[in-house]
Amino acid sequence: MSRGAIVVLSGGLDSTVCLARAVRAHSPVVAFTVDYGQRHRIELERAAAVAEHYSVEHVVQRLDLASWGGSALTDGELAVPTASEAADGPAIPITYVPGRNLIFLSLAVALAEVRDARAVYLGVNALDYSGYPDCRPEFVDSFRTTAALALRRGVEGDAVEVVTPLVQLRKADIVRLGVTLDAPLALTWSCYRGDTEPCDDCDACALRAKGFAEAGIADPARR
Amino acid sequence: MSRGAIVVLSGGLDSTVCLARAVRAHSPVVAFTVDYGQRHRIELERAAAVAEHYSVEHVVQRLDLASWGGSALTDGELAVPTASEAADGPAIPITYVPGRNLIFLSLAVALAEVRDARAVYLGVNALDYSGYPDCRPEFVDSFRTTAALALRRGVEGDAVEVVTPLVQLRKADIVRLGVTLDAPLALTWSCYRGDTEPCDDCDACALRAKGFAEAGIADPARR
Repeated sequence: MSRGAIVVLSGGLDSTVCLARAVRAHSPVVAFTVDYGQRHRIELERAAAVAEHYSVEHVVQRLDLASWGGSALTDGELAVPTASEAADGPAIPITYVPGRNLIFLSLAVALAEVRDARAVYLGVNALDYSGYPDCRPEFVDSFRTTAALALRRGVEGDAVEVVTPLVQLRKADIVRLGVTLDAPLALTWSCYRGDTEPCDDCDACALRAKGFAEAGIADPARR
Repeated sequence: MSRGAIVVLSGGLDSTVCLARAVRAHSPVVAFTVDYGQRHRIELERAAAVAEHYSVEHVVQRLDLASWGGSALTDGELAVPTASEAADGPAIPITYVPGRNLIFLSLAVALAEVRDARAVYLGVNALDYSGYPDCRPEFVDSFRTTAALALRRGVEGDAVEVVTPLVQLRKADIVRLGVTLDAPLALTWSCYRGDTEPCDDCDACALRAKGFAEAGIADPARR
């Protein structure tokens, strides 16, 4: 068994499948969630439930990006577009949170160094995704180099690994992998809107539904 | 006049000289301070005073790195070494905060994008410094590439500039530049210890004293 891992956990489908993968390869595993002021607060509850499911430590870092504005995910004045509006809109939609994965990964590799964890897992996906630049493999590759230069571990020749097991998977493959790994998909939340039930209307709901449909699996969160 | 700039402001000598430089080239300028749980809380008061001196907006982001531990700057259980202990100790001393500039820069470039600022200023210095890996120019160079890949601005061919005007200066040159720019050096705080007066004993105090001595200038904060 290798040393531990930090898993960036949003409470969504992808990061939960990442956690399911990480707990099979690492110990201890720490689930790391950033409460950045997202409007869909239910995501944070689901992240806690998933961490509890796996009986792993859950570190929640509060970060007030909401007061900065600039994203429909944090600014209540901006409407979350429907999936068809997102498809017809700019390549990078208004649900983009500037620098989100850059900030999350920076915090996660720092935590990995403090905890002496071998790896950081991030559930980015660049195929069935919303077009955010910080989900692309070229961003993650560059981040690895930068993080190795920033941290003591890199200087000492033992850089924190940044693992993105889903980056080249279709959403249907992520669903299948989650089922294979017995991940608690029923606990996960994808909807960008913060109601008690998913809206079935936003880009995140549409991507999730497409994934389950193409995998031929009923979404256990909708039963 | 170019567009605005975000200046990472700790309240220390270097970041204050950076701000003095930035206000001559950019408008509006936003001073950006991270309250990461540093023991030397007086640094935060000095940052506010410097921002007020320049009548610029001051954005303070709270980030709880102290609960993570791992650094003498955030963990009251760890002693801040004296300058001679630091010189005799490991290349990266225990005052190192894992990922600090990586995290600060990630937040600052995100804020720059939200505010449509052209540049981020960071007062890192790789000559008279404490040996932190995330103060080296190779880290900053790599970060520029990563940030351009992470942010909308980079995708659109207008990447946020990351400016480090002090990176190749000696501390004495930074002092001289500060005096030339009429920076409010009397307001700045360098000491790693959080008392009401600098300790004259830690690495930060030693570097500051050496800089003023070599510049032949009396430290206005000590009068």
